[in-house]
Amino acid sequence: MKTHVISVLAGDGIGPEVMPVAQAVLDSACEGSDVELRWEERPWGTDYFRSHGRMMPLNAIDKMADTDAIFLGAVGHPEVPDAETLWGMLIPIRREFDQYINLRPIKSLPGVRSPLANHEGIDLVIVRENVEGEYSAVGGRSGVGTEYAAAYQQAIFTKHGVSRAVSFAAELASERNGDLVSATKSNGIVHTMTFWDEVVAEVAGGFPEVRLTPMLIDALSARLVQSPQSFDVIVASNLFGDILSDIAAATVGSIGIAPSANLNPEKRHPSMFEPVHGSAPDIVGRGIANPVGQIWAGAMMLDHLGHPDLAVDVELALRSVLSSGLSTPDLGGQATTVQVGDAIVAALAGK
Amino acid sequence: MKTHVISVLAGDGIGPEVMPVAQAVLDSACEGSDVELRWEERPWGTDYFRSHGRMMPLNAIDKMADTDAIFLGAVGHPEVPDAETLWGMLIPIRREFDQYINLRPIKSLPGVRSPLANHEGIDLVIVRENVEGEYSAVGGRSGVGTEYAAAYQQAIFTKHGVSRAVSFAAELASERNGDLVSATKSNGIVHTMTFWDEVVAEVAGGFPEVRLTPMLIDALSARLVQSPQSFDVIVASNLFGDILSDIAAATVGSIGIAPSANLNPEKRHPSMFEPVHGSAPDIVGRGIANPVGQIWAGAMMLDHLGHPDLAVDVELALRSVLSSGLSTPDLGGQATTVQVGDAIVAALAGK
Ligand SMILES: CC(C)[C@H](C(=O)O)[C@@H](O)C(=O)O
Ligand SMILES: CC(C)[C@H](C(=O)O)[C@@H](O)C(=O)O
Repeated sequence: MKTHVISVLAGDGIGPEVMPVAQAVLDSACEGSDVELRWEERPWGTDYFRSHGRMMPLNAIDKMADTDAIFLGAVGHPEVPDAETLWGMLIPIRREFDQYINLRPIKSLPGVRSPLANHEGIDLVIVRENVEGEYSAVGGRSGVGTEYAAAYQQAIFTKHGVSRAVSFAAELASERNGDLVSATKSNGIVHTMTFWDEVVAEVAGGFPEVRLTPMLIDALSARLVQSPQSFDVIVASNLFGDILSDIAAATVGSIGIAPSANLNPEKRHPSMFEPVHGSAPDIVGRGIANPVGQIWAGAMMLDHLGHPDLAVDVELALRSVLSSGLSTPDLGGQATTVQVGDAIVAALAGK
Repeated sequence: MKTHVISVLAGDGIGPEVMPVAQAVLDSACEGSDVELRWEERPWGTDYFRSHGRMMPLNAIDKMADTDAIFLGAVGHPEVPDAETLWGMLIPIRREFDQYINLRPIKSLPGVRSPLANHEGIDLVIVRENVEGEYSAVGGRSGVGTEYAAAYQQAIFTKHGVSRAVSFAAELASERNGDLVSATKSNGIVHTMTFWDEVVAEVAGGFPEVRLTPMLIDALSARLVQSPQSFDVIVASNLFGDILSDIAAATVGSIGIAPSANLNPEKRHPSMFEPVHGSAPDIVGRGIANPVGQIWAGAMMLDHLGHPDLAVDVELALRSVLSSGLSTPDLGGQATTVQVGDAIVAALAGK
């Protein structure tokens, strides 16, 4: 028996509603295999913040360090600034555990309405640098309270940081069809993006089977809307990757159900798996949150833990339920969170 | 007779192909009115760079300072780094003439293929802060040549700079339907974007008839793909505005024909009008470049010069030719640059 210990951070809003449903699906995927998931629940997030003044205890990172993965629900609450909730939980976990890759697979899905006229055959992956770049703690303000007030934010790109993200992306591209697009803005953001271009070209040069195409972020965003089918692997900085991931998810209509994996590819630290959606305060407590994003993130977790076969089982079960038309109201259906989960469990049992 | 002196910077690539066609259209729009355009041609750009080592002469800004507007074709050449061409011409003009607003109108167009299933009724404007923010000259590198190399880029947002952009946008929103969306990323980019949010809220507070909705750039980009019809006026920083403008143009299929106005709203300095497309080196010299973006930019110029009636004439002529199906190959037609121009002139004559 192979046992994986998973830190469960259901978090805020609909997080605690979709999390148990996803856990049940993953448990049932493991049934009959030699894999077992042991869940360690951590009640951290905005409620914890209210009583303790922090999103997580001081030793939170230590407590999770020896677990095999982190399964995150949602973080954020309308009454607490995002800068507090996210920089108190999501971002420190990504950084402390050096989860330097954010992986966002985007695929055409059955039963999901896309805004595009032609949305068949979309299958791309966005590899986002996840710990440096435009998201930096370096910055501040001057002239506070005067008409000359200003704010500064330093973007920081290191050769180390860019190289490893690009290596990961090039490796992935070489396992797929060999096309790698790099998102840049070296015509407008001259200091960091010309550096990005140079490092990307150098690293990609080590993968002769990979065709590298640098593309300006504005043109790339537009082309992602015009023909998402023309992309395979896109590598992007922290901010550009964030934006592109959501555009790409929108093209397949999956913004509410897409998964996101925050990886430490060398497995020196636990990786974190989360749905792309937020805490959705508007629908909390109604039992109608869509659990698909959480479950799909769970499938990525199984894959990362070394069980691609189980991941495929979950994904196929997901797809069969989506095709059947059973869905929560956000996708136009009338099912509850639990009903969707049960249907996916049933599909897994019938596999 | 009202005479306007226009600095003409045809620039690089297809710039010199579409420029004379656009000039002819604008001249014919003015015919029979009391408006006259006097064109001052400036042969600056990459050819000039080749022989002089600069994109424009040292006194270029002085030479244009007393003209009423700048009509720009395209800037950029595959053999010269963008950082050289754009920061040697486009960006300095925007900054020296304090063209702090980049205005990008996006409207559904007849005869233009959109990638969206539902692309009727799109009518929005993006107001982009155009001279500060993420596009800053402040930055550099450390550890060059070592494995510890890094690059830094400072984003700089001033209260002055953000306020005036937001005032412009709020003013515009109050003349339209009162909806103003502000693009932010205060959950990830904490120093400058929380500042942006504060200044935006303060300025918008002075426009009680305007409903302000801050929206995260990732979610906003996705929603722009999902339902562009739900937007009216969007105000955004330099980088976010750049990206959003191209996404929005993609939704109406107009990326190759959209116009862009770089405004100094107080008219203390000349404003600049340009098509969104670049120099398109791949089709240079074939006479098939689409002149619509240049012409449409010219319509915005007429409007800015105080002749909204003439601007409307040009836009209607454009639309009637687009509906007739006459178009260059990029829009699926077989017409040449000159044929499209002639058709628009004919439509104007028949008005
Ligand atoms: C060419 C480039 C620097 C420019 C910008 O990003 O400002 C362009 O994309 C635009 O939108 O005018
Ligand atoms: C919540 C926010 C800070 C986060 C990000 O931008 O990284 C989110 O948008 C994501 O993509 O995971």
